[in-house]
Amino acid sequence: MQTTIDEIAPVSDGALERFRGVIGAQWVLSSVDDRRSYHDPYAFDGGPEHEASAILAPQSVEEIQAIIRIANEEKTPLWPVGRGKNLGYGAAAPVLRNSLILDLSRMNRILEVDEKSAHCLLEPGVGFFDLYDHLQANNIPLWMSVPGNSWGSVIGNALDRGIGYTPYGDHCDMLCGLEVVLPDGDVIRTGMGAMDNASTWQHYRHGYGPGWEQMFVQSSLGVVTKGGLWLQPEPEMTAKTEIRFPKFEDAEWAVDVLADLRRRDIIQHNIVFGSPIRAATVLSQRADWYEGEGAIPDAVCEEIMAKFNLGWWTGKINVQGHAEIVEASMKIIRAAIEPRLGKEVDFEVWRKGDPISKSARGVPTTIGLQAVNWYGGRGGHIGFAPVMPSKGAEALAFARKMKAIYDEVGQDYYTTFTIGRRHINNVNLLLYDRDDVEMVARVKSLFTRLVDVARAEGYAEYRGHIDFMDMIADTYDFNDHALRRLNDKVKKTLDPNNIIAPGRNGISPYHPRKEGAE
Amino acid sequence: MQTTIDEIAPVSDGALERFRGVIGAQWVLSSVDDRRSYHDPYAFDGGPEHEASAILAPQSVEEIQAIIRIANEEKTPLWPVGRGKNLGYGAAAPVLRNSLILDLSRMNRILEVDEKSAHCLLEPGVGFFDLYDHLQANNIPLWMSVPGNSWGSVIGNALDRGIGYTPYGDHCDMLCGLEVVLPDGDVIRTGMGAMDNASTWQHYRHGYGPGWEQMFVQSSLGVVTKGGLWLQPEPEMTAKTEIRFPKFEDAEWAVDVLADLRRRDIIQHNIVFGSPIRAATVLSQRADWYEGEGAIPDAVCEEIMAKFNLGWWTGKINVQGHAEIVEASMKIIRAAIEPRLGKEVDFEVWRKGDPISKSARGVPTTIGLQAVNWYGGRGGHIGFAPVMPSKGAEALAFARKMKAIYDEVGQDYYTTFTIGRRHINNVNLLLYDRDDVEMVARVKSLFTRLVDVARAEGYAEYRGHIDFMDMIADTYDFNDHALRRLNDKVKKTLDPNNIIAPGRNGISPYHPRKEGAE
Repeated sequence: MQTTIDEIAPVSDGALERFRGVIGAQWVLSSVDDRRSYHDPYAFDGGPEHEASAILAPQSVEEIQAIIRIANEEKTPLWPVGRGKNLGYGAAAPVLRNSLILDLSRMNRILEVDEKSAHCLLEPGVGFFDLYDHLQANNIPLWMSVPGNSWGSVIGNALDRGIGYTPYGDHCDMLCGLEVVLPDGDVIRTGMGAMDNASTWQHYRHGYGPGWEQMFVQSSLGVVTKGGLWLQPEPEMTAKTEIRFPKFEDAEWAVDVLADLRRRDIIQHNIVFGSPIRAATVLSQRADWYEGEGAIPDAVCEEIMAKFNLGWWTGKINVQGHAEIVEASMKIIRAAIEPRLGKEVDFEVWRKGDPISKSARGVPTTIGLQAVNWYGGRGGHIGFAPVMPSKGAEALAFARKMKAIYDEVGQDYYTTFTIGRRHINNVNLLLYDRDDVEMVARVKSLFTRLVDVARAEGYAEYRGHIDFMDMIADTYDFNDHALRRLNDKVKKTLDPNNIIAPGRNGISPYHPRKEGAE
Repeated sequence: MQTTIDEIAPVSDGALERFRGVIGAQWVLSSVDDRRSYHDPYAFDGGPEHEASAILAPQSVEEIQAIIRIANEEKTPLWPVGRGKNLGYGAAAPVLRNSLILDLSRMNRILEVDEKSAHCLLEPGVGFFDLYDHLQANNIPLWMSVPGNSWGSVIGNALDRGIGYTPYGDHCDMLCGLEVVLPDGDVIRTGMGAMDNASTWQHYRHGYGPGWEQMFVQSSLGVVTKGGLWLQPEPEMTAKTEIRFPKFEDAEWAVDVLADLRRRDIIQHNIVFGSPIRAATVLSQRADWYEGEGAIPDAVCEEIMAKFNLGWWTGKINVQGHAEIVEASMKIIRAAIEPRLGKEVDFEVWRKGDPISKSARGVPTTIGLQAVNWYGGRGGHIGFAPVMPSKGAEALAFARKMKAIYDEVGQDYYTTFTIGRRHINNVNLLLYDRDDVEMVARVKSLFTRLVDVARAEGYAEYRGHIDFMDMIADTYDFNDHALRRLNDKVKKTLDPNNIIAPGRNGISPYHPRKEGAE
């Protein structure tokens, strides 16, 4: 069952007036239009269930501290967002209706780029395009990883454990040093930044004593105001390829071979490995292919594969580095894959000076968002993203189980297995037409069912939409939800007035859960 | 100033009797000899300052839970150790005299080794030799990283952020999934293990919501009872070499070149780069070279370098993987180093089937412990280990400053720069003869001075001896010790009776600090 938590009262006029006093009236947005413009654009219900009372857009740490002081006094919860583009997971919208959105997009300074050590220090409002443009404009030979939709905040994406597909694609693992305003207004820096004027804040993550960086990831325990991020030194050469595995059953051997290459760092990035629908949703609309009832039939899928030159599974891999390493890696990859694939794997090679489009560099893009037009109407998607072992037999068995369910309920099977060293982020987009009530209902119940099916295999989600955060948290049930007890305890201590992101990732000790929750 | 916290009363006979009741009288060790055998063997004062009241050696999670219940009722602090071999940092001894040592060395089961995904699940009593023997005896093609002294616990070392010198050498980064008994007796599992019967506990570290794994590293917030650890798939080939950089000043270019190769993953491990005294202390005694006053003169250092075929800096590097990659990497390393070095870099190559001694595999060893015999008498050492940026100019300037201080006070300069992608762990061993009162006093005051010198450069220690934990924590002073306020708050919440490792890493909210502390 989907579970929600009780809503809270709208912010009072008095509180709004106090917020205007500290950040200026023009940065307190509370009109109907303002509030609607911060709705989740893909919301099932159009958005009112998660509508904010108002939006606050501070520009400095001091302003955030002042806001937090007032929020504590007024008991008014804040929902911090970097740029509010967490599409598929709720975008800018808070779990709890009438929370205030703390929009950090005005805090968009690139505070430092260290070319030699290859890292940067960013405010949370810096977007992927901003950072990319900065590196390009200043001829800085550092590359970045970008997510499928690069519209959002670099730090915000890392803080939600977003992923990319280049060697620096485990975004939250690339964080090195956070500055955080705690719910009591105190400011801490994690890692070596906990020393005043530290010389190593972005060099070494761990600091001394318990490490708190991941405390602020997918978190309601503070507002991150600065984030260090490691960047990739520009390589001499890259080579990229798309490998088309023709049959559904190829998933088994393909995942095993790719995961082994990944684990041995021949492939140094997490590998996208997706179904035909994935490519089709970006390149076309469903009506171009099929207008019948139910999920797209396998025969139509074959047409799509033929038209767009896809396999049943299409994997994208790249290698980057010194020319000798790239050459050797291509050879090893070919030797591992070609005998089973039965055809050659061709790489597109880039060398310094060639056009960037030939390279495997992470270049920000929003093309993936096309997918929401698949069904027509006002489109939307949510992500269902369980984590699995990167083992072929398990991946194939789960794909088979999932596809059967999609076929049964009549939903097109958009899946990607992002293959890491030992895990897979199995990111599925559940696409829908928000104007089709029946379809929306089908997707909601499909999501719930998929969580259960994954749970039965011992797979839990790494991330989820604000509508389903409680439900996902419920599946983390070891020792009668011991994790929840720990989370609640820390939350109550650091945030006694429950003012930062109540309900985020199912952590909500102050709000009784509705029926269906545990 | 060195700071200590007030001591506590010895454990009561009543409490000991209760502990005997839950784990058996034979596993409660409290005789004078028992307690002495758990002294820090390198303690400046011989050990009584940090003597435990008794030692408890449980064998199961349930026994630990029972112990913790009693400890809470009796207000008796516990100092958990894996195998108690944290030499240079206090070994098994607690910060707070009269704490009880919770010796987990009987919990020494290797619970799982997953050959395909390359990870294992260990109890904290499993030593490096145990795991190595298990892999060898069962012909499991997985390799491990080992620290300089491999006498200790695999999980314990990772939990203290120990380091090794192979691709899996950032030990705490290789942890994936912990089981922890919290100070209230509750049992949690971190990451995906927070789902009951999770299939991915050792596959994906982060879980859902805030990540708590690093909460239990260098920590007093729980007792780790199981730890997942990633292992390295056996490579096809390795090549290793020792590079001798002849001059002191070579540190600048050598660090820059090595760090760049490290950052680009041509060298896939943190690189040991050490002074001549480092090698000499293992291979000889000081009296073999010099019996005069003061630090070993530079001229004698040159004799040592000649005799043992050392540079002023000697770096050990290795490459591991597919043969083509190893060949390419050797070529790249040679091209980067030979022109500046002015001579060839020769690699020793190992291929599957060759004797292990030729390989770059991590093989447990305790030979490094020879170093404590350097000055003769009953030897000891403590580690002074600031973290620095991996930049040549900074490394050279700091080495110069350090060596001048060592020369001034008359201590031999044993240093290693363990060069990572962006940081250096500058591990210095301060060696001494515990029977030489003057030398011990000199080392103590040298340590204190070095902390200050590092602090002035913005460098903080990543780890330190129990005698100096408060002092090191004091240097983490951003925003008037904001980190301490956070640590204290979490500590008080999770451990209201202060029963787990009080004083660990300077976290000690219940004990007034003595003069000199802040």
